[in-house]
Amino acid sequence: VPKVVDHGQRRGEMVAALWRVAAYEGLEAVSLSRVADEAGVSKGRVQHYFGTRDALLDYTAGYLTDRVTARIKPRLAAAPDARAAVRGALLEVLPLTEDSIVDTRVGIAFLIRALGDDALRDRYSARNAQFLELLTYYLAVARDEGAFDAERDPGALAVELFALVNGLKEPLLLGDLTPADATAIVDEALARLAA
Amino acid sequence: VPKVVDHGQRRGEMVAALWRVAAYEGLEAVSLSRVADEAGVSKGRVQHYFGTRDALLDYTAGYLTDRVTARIKPRLAAAPDARAAVRGALLEVLPLTEDSIVDTRVGIAFLIRALGDDALRDRYSARNAQFLELLTYYLAVARDEGAFDAERDPGALAVELFALVNGLKEPLLLGDLTPADATAIVDEALARLAA
Repeated sequence: VPKVVDHGQRRGEMVAALWRVAAYEGLEAVSLSRVADEAGVSKGRVQHYFGTRDALLDYTAGYLTDRVTARIKPRLAAAPDARAAVRGALLEVLPLTEDSIVDTRVGIAFLIRALGDDALRDRYSARNAQFLELLTYYLAVARDEGAFDAERDPGALAVELFALVNGLKEPLLLGDLTPADATAIVDEALARLAA
Repeated sequence: VPKVVDHGQRRGEMVAALWRVAAYEGLEAVSLSRVADEAGVSKGRVQHYFGTRDALLDYTAGYLTDRVTARIKPRLAAAPDARAAVRGALLEVLPLTEDSIVDTRVGIAFLIRALGDDALRDRYSARNAQFLELLTYYLAVARDEGAFDAERDPGALAVELFALVNGLKEPLLLGDLTPADATAIVDEALARLAA
């Protein structure tokens, strides 16, 4: 019988290799041949699945969004109330686990590229806008549930809290803050919002 | 008479070229030959001043710190009180002017590299620690002057405010927040600290 080729799995292995290269060597190291080496396949195979280096990098940007969304969704579904959903969404932005550390590194590596590439920049902004919308929604519900000060505008608060967690990424990645430190900072910020 | 070669000026022109390449094309584009092209000099001349590509990148990291420090110092000296010094230092972290936009881009481009390079990571952490020390000092003085709630610990507050401004870099660079939006967020955060 002919060998059944699982294209999904092969692509998955190449994506995992791409992820390791991007996170630990930076985007400058991402190339068809470097990913092929890392995945243990031929450069031609990587080229077959992704096309050019630019296409490979575009794929990476979309996949990053998918990974983060996939982590946030169950966390929101499991939240007992809107305040817990806000906390869960904020903590999910932070590089606190092996997966989110790698994703954060890839995200930072991409930001500088996005600044020089309009399509990628729009994708970045759209992703951030989507997260802010989600956060604003839960902040408004939490306010209506009496968990937060009714005087604060949920939209403005979402922008501020999103900035806070984004700004905690660097000290976490550098090891200047522990995951416990960063979590405490988020919890204190939320505690100060109590009505 | 023999032509007098101004080594400082030549080096300065190469550094300016390096800066443009790093900020607008990313670190992946920084090479001896790319910087030589951008500066309009030979690759050999860039090599003569900087040595290897790694040395060029190390130089960039140190120069970035010098530039930011040079902007913060006069701002602190001109501040009428400690609260104004806190505000000035925080706003200086933000990419609000042409110079600080370029520096922020270079800083982000470097972060991912620093994560894989212990010497550069230490330099990054030391730079951040120095800024936090400065901010903590002014927050403590401002508290003693009655400008901020005495219950908040200046050190913890410095970490939180530094995270906030760091997290405002991305939406500013992406154009998702205007300089006025970001300045208002910082001002509101400071206003809420009022005793």
